Amino acid sequence: MATTSRQRKRGHDPESVLSIAVGVFNERGFDGTSMEDLARALGVTKSAIYYHVPGKEQLLARALDRALDGLFEVVADERATTGPAIERLQWVVRHSVRILVDRLPYVTLLLRVRGNSTTEQQALDRRREFDRFIAHLVKEAAADGQIRPDLDPALVTRLLFGTVNSITEWYQPGRGGTADELADAVLKMTFDGLRV
Amino acid sequence: MATTSRQRKRGHDPESVLSIAVGVFNERGFDGTSMEDLARALGVTKSAIYYHVPGKEQLLARALDRALDGLFEVVADERATTGPAIERLQWVVRHSVRILVDRLPYVTLLLRVRGNSTTEQQALDRRREFDRFIAHLVKEAAADGQIRPDLDPALVTRLLFGTVNSITEWYQPGRGGTADELADAVLKMTFDGLRV
Repeated sequence: MATTSRQRKRGHDPESVLSIAVGVFNERGFDGTSMEDLARALGVTKSAIYYHVPGKEQLLARALDRALDGLFEVVADERATTGPAIERLQWVVRHSVRILVDRLPYVTLLLRVRGNSTTEQQALDRRREFDRFIAHLVKEAAADGQIRPDLDPALVTRLLFGTVNSITEWYQPGRGGTADELADAVLKMTFDGLRV
Repeated sequence: MATTSRQRKRGHDPESVLSIAVGVFNERGFDGTSMEDLARALGVTKSAIYYHVPGKEQLLARALDRALDGLFEVVADERATTGPAIERLQWVVRHSVRILVDRLPYVTLLLRVRGNSTTEQQALDRRREFDRFIAHLVKEAAADGQIRPDLDPALVTRLLFGTVNSITEWYQPGRGGTADELADAVLKMTFDGLRV
C-alpha cells in the first residue's frame, strides 16, 4: 500500500501504525487490545483508526509475517542450503539471533501466539515448517558424524531455539551486546559447550 | 490451613483450589482472571469462592512461592553448596529441570510475571536472587578453569536458564521424556556441546 500525503500529514504511514500496534499487542496481549486502545496509542480518534487499518486481525497477520518472513529468508539463503550441514545449522542459528534482535517486538509477538484464530494457526503452521527445516539439518549433521547422535533431532531443535528465543525475555536494544556477540555466545554454549 | 470436613465435602481443599486457580491464571492470564472465572472453574457460586480464598492476589502469591520454593530448595541443597563449582552448577541445572517438570504450571506462571503488583515484584526479586546464585557459580567454575572464561557469567546464566525455562513452552506431562532424560539433553548440549 502506497503512503498517501494524507497519511504522512497525520504522521502514520502503514509502517509506523504496525510498529505502534505491535507495541500495544505485546504490552496488553492481542486479545486484551481493543481498536480504542490502538487509536489511543496512535493519537487518533476511534473513527480515524479505521482509516488507518480495517481491523486488529489484519495488523496481527502483518506483524507475524514480519517475524516469520525474516526467519524464512534465513533458511532460504544459499548458506542455509549448501555446504556441510553442521555449518549450515550454525549459520541458521546465528542469523536467527540477528532476526530476533532486528525484529524484536515482532518475534516476541510471534512467540506468544497460541493458535486462537485462523491468523494465529497459520503463523503456528509456518513456525512448525521452520522447526522441521532445523530438525532436518540437525539430522543431517548427525548423519555426517558432526553432531552427537545420542540426542533426538526434534529435541535438539527445541532446546536450540529455546535458547535463541529466550533472548526475547531480557534483551534490550542498545544494551546486552550486538546480535553478533549474542550469536557468538549462543553458538559457543550450544555447539562447543561451556566446559573447557 | 487444615482441611475441614466442609471443604472435603465440596471437593476443594486448599491444594486443589490452588491447582485449579493456577490453570485458569495460565489460560486467561492473571490480570484477565476474575473471581467469577475462578468460581466457575471450581464449580462453586460466586459467593462461595470467598469461602475458599480471600482473593486472587493471595492465590498468586502461593502459586509463585510453589515454584520459587522448589528452586530455592535446589540451591540450598548440600550438592549445590559443596564440591567443585562445575559439578554444583550441573547439579543445579539438572534439578531445576526436575522442579520445572514436577511443578510445570507453577513455573509457567512464574515465568510470565512482569512485576505488575507487590506480589509480582517480590517474586521477581526472588528470581533475581536465584539468578545471582547461578551467576556466582558460573564465575567460580570459570575461575577454577572448568568453564570457558570468554563468556560473561551473567549472560551464561541467562542462556542456560533460557534453555531450561523454554521447556515450559512445549513440555507435556507424560510425553517428551522424563525430567531426568530432559536434564541429560540440556546438560549434554550446554556443557559438552552438540558438536562431536
